[in-house]
Amino acid sequence: MAAFPFQISATDGKARTGVLRTPRGDIRTPAFMPVGTAATVKALTVDQVRQTGADIILGNTYHLMLRPGAERVKRLGGLHRFMRWDGPILTDSGGFQVMSLSAISKVREEAVTFQSHIDGSKHVLSPERSMEIQADLLGSDIVMQLDECVSWPADERRAQEALQLSARWGQRCKAWFGERESQALFGIQQGSTIEALRRESSERLIDIGFDGYAIGGLAVGEGHDLMVDTLYYAADLLPADRPRYLMGVGKPLDLVEAIARGVDMFDCVLPTRSGRHGQAWTSEGSINLKNARFAEDDEPLDPASDCPAGRDYSRAYLHHLVKCDEILGQVLLSWWNIAFFQQTMRGAREAIAEGRFDAWRKTFAEGQRRRSGEERDAG
Amino acid sequence: MAAFPFQISATDGKARTGVLRTPRGDIRTPAFMPVGTAATVKALTVDQVRQTGADIILGNTYHLMLRPGAERVKRLGGLHRFMRWDGPILTDSGGFQVMSLSAISKVREEAVTFQSHIDGSKHVLSPERSMEIQADLLGSDIVMQLDECVSWPADERRAQEALQLSARWGQRCKAWFGERESQALFGIQQGSTIEALRRESSERLIDIGFDGYAIGGLAVGEGHDLMVDTLYYAADLLPADRPRYLMGVGKPLDLVEAIARGVDMFDCVLPTRSGRHGQAWTSEGSINLKNARFAEDDEPLDPASDCPAGRDYSRAYLHHLVKCDEILGQVLLSWWNIAFFQQTMRGAREAIAEGRFDAWRKTFAEGQRRRSGEERDAG
Repeated sequence: MAAFPFQISATDGKARTGVLRTPRGDIRTPAFMPVGTAATVKALTVDQVRQTGADIILGNTYHLMLRPGAERVKRLGGLHRFMRWDGPILTDSGGFQVMSLSAISKVREEAVTFQSHIDGSKHVLSPERSMEIQADLLGSDIVMQLDECVSWPADERRAQEALQLSARWGQRCKAWFGERESQALFGIQQGSTIEALRRESSERLIDIGFDGYAIGGLAVGEGHDLMVDTLYYAADLLPADRPRYLMGVGKPLDLVEAIARGVDMFDCVLPTRSGRHGQAWTSEGSINLKNARFAEDDEPLDPASDCPAGRDYSRAYLHHLVKCDEILGQVLLSWWNIAFFQQTMRGAREAIAEGRFDAWRKTFAEGQRRRSGEERDAG
Repeated sequence: MAAFPFQISATDGKARTGVLRTPRGDIRTPAFMPVGTAATVKALTVDQVRQTGADIILGNTYHLMLRPGAERVKRLGGLHRFMRWDGPILTDSGGFQVMSLSAISKVREEAVTFQSHIDGSKHVLSPERSMEIQADLLGSDIVMQLDECVSWPADERRAQEALQLSARWGQRCKAWFGERESQALFGIQQGSTIEALRRESSERLIDIGFDGYAIGGLAVGEGHDLMVDTLYYAADLLPADRPRYLMGVGKPLDLVEAIARGVDMFDCVLPTRSGRHGQAWTSEGSINLKNARFAEDDEPLDPASDCPAGRDYSRAYLHHLVKCDEILGQVLLSWWNIAFFQQTMRGAREAIAEGRFDAWRKTFAEGQRRRSGEERDAG
């Protein structure tokens, strides 16, 4: 019996829409989770994040265990109270960032040891410690198992080792976490871009039994086409009655293609990171506000949006702010980008509910490709 | 007949409270004007600025003439529309920043020539061009004459030359500006810290006849004590029935002491600049949120404030954001500091109206000095 009820209200092809019910509020799926790295969705107040329609945000265990420290967050009332977000929070396990951000990290059966990228201090992250940090100290609503993610390309032996280690760690996480009513634990499928390995990983996870299942090890260099090809089978291998979460993805079109393959949840730093670099995502693809052609463009990014950042300020003004490196430019573009990602999720949910997802997806994809090549990504 | 009605509703000693009525809204005095340098009060949306109780903001001619350019602002509908601030805006003349920020500037009778600090491009700023930029291109509500401000200490001959040049420029500004109903022109008193020169400057300005009078050439190195000593006579020398504006000042206690000497309006980058550097102004003086003693301080800056930034977030959270160089920390502290400056103005206005300004000022000063020496200014 899984922790949170997951009600799929409609399907259209492999795409699904529904609601994951948590004690801190409903998560409408497909859902995009803005990333609140160090207890802040970068540049935004939680009220601005909420205004975009986000139901859930993500917190990074690696960042939080280093600053301000997980025990300190606990003493200050937990992550929700600390950062004033009263909706659900999903935390990652810390493993991915330990292995990508830390100067020196060593993966052993027992745990990962690593040095902080901030001050070089030494830390140990075991499956049990990751659980303790996420579930008990931060007080996360959705807790992710510790896993090992291999970069792409990975040879089969290396990918096999990583998925086996991830499965053993998943077992230890589950043993520590047990069964809880008010928190959920998600397992993470690995296996690189090799179908047999994705299958083996899924079987191991399903044997253990999780409240939801993530697809890890994608968006690590394999590119859009191979990623969506992998998703064809990777999503199908996971239980249909539980939420499927594609980790760390991606551009709006990646999200829509993943939804078409049965994925329900996403997180990515892209909207806030590109917002801080002057890039806006729109229904016609991404545009770089630094471009001189916006210098006297008096139109807002989207006059029909309900996000003030996209509706009330002219592109000329955003261009000016970006050119002057003004913080307000970073704020407004981060805000707008999150709103656009939420608007995309809303569009997908409505299209699936109304049985017109394929047509919606085609139109969306054409729009996204319209400016392809015209602008360089600033992200 | 001055452009904007100025109604003084109460006085207490030399302190006055009232309302300056403009077509874009009332300015309650004493008033603090947040500085919106490059068409943005740094890090804040105009809605956040408005929420603090600010009636008017300031724009910098020097910054705006360089980026995005005054003609461009005009084509985009003027400064109010460009930055979405529909209340009154006061613009400075550009002169002070030409002389302080530009790499090379030459002051001649006809005009100041200078090179942009951004790209080295050459520009000319005459009294007439400053008027054109402020009044016609940006569309400012309160326009400042071009003046020459000398640094401190200045010998008497140098200070005399600068005040005479400023007076001649004031005459040219007035000739260009003429009489307007919907815009006001303020003259600027100079004369360093020398009473006879301040007197001479005032007489020249009053002969020309302005809609309001600023006190320039203070807060340029002379220190708090000499500044308030100079204000004793400098404010008295200006017409009692017109608003008096002390330019570029200052710390909350400077403001209160200047109000005690009959000043009505202020502007300063201090609240936003110190906010970006982790410093918060409070009723107990300034505190630096980076200080480790706030790491587990669960109290907000001011639970009684109506500013969300000061009321809703713990000092521990602000400490964390500042330590991590998070943009949200800069946003929240800029927002709070502007709110605290507005709260100080509100406190002064109420105290003057109720005839208890001296007692209020004494309590305020004791509070401000409480942490004196304990914290270094981060500004």
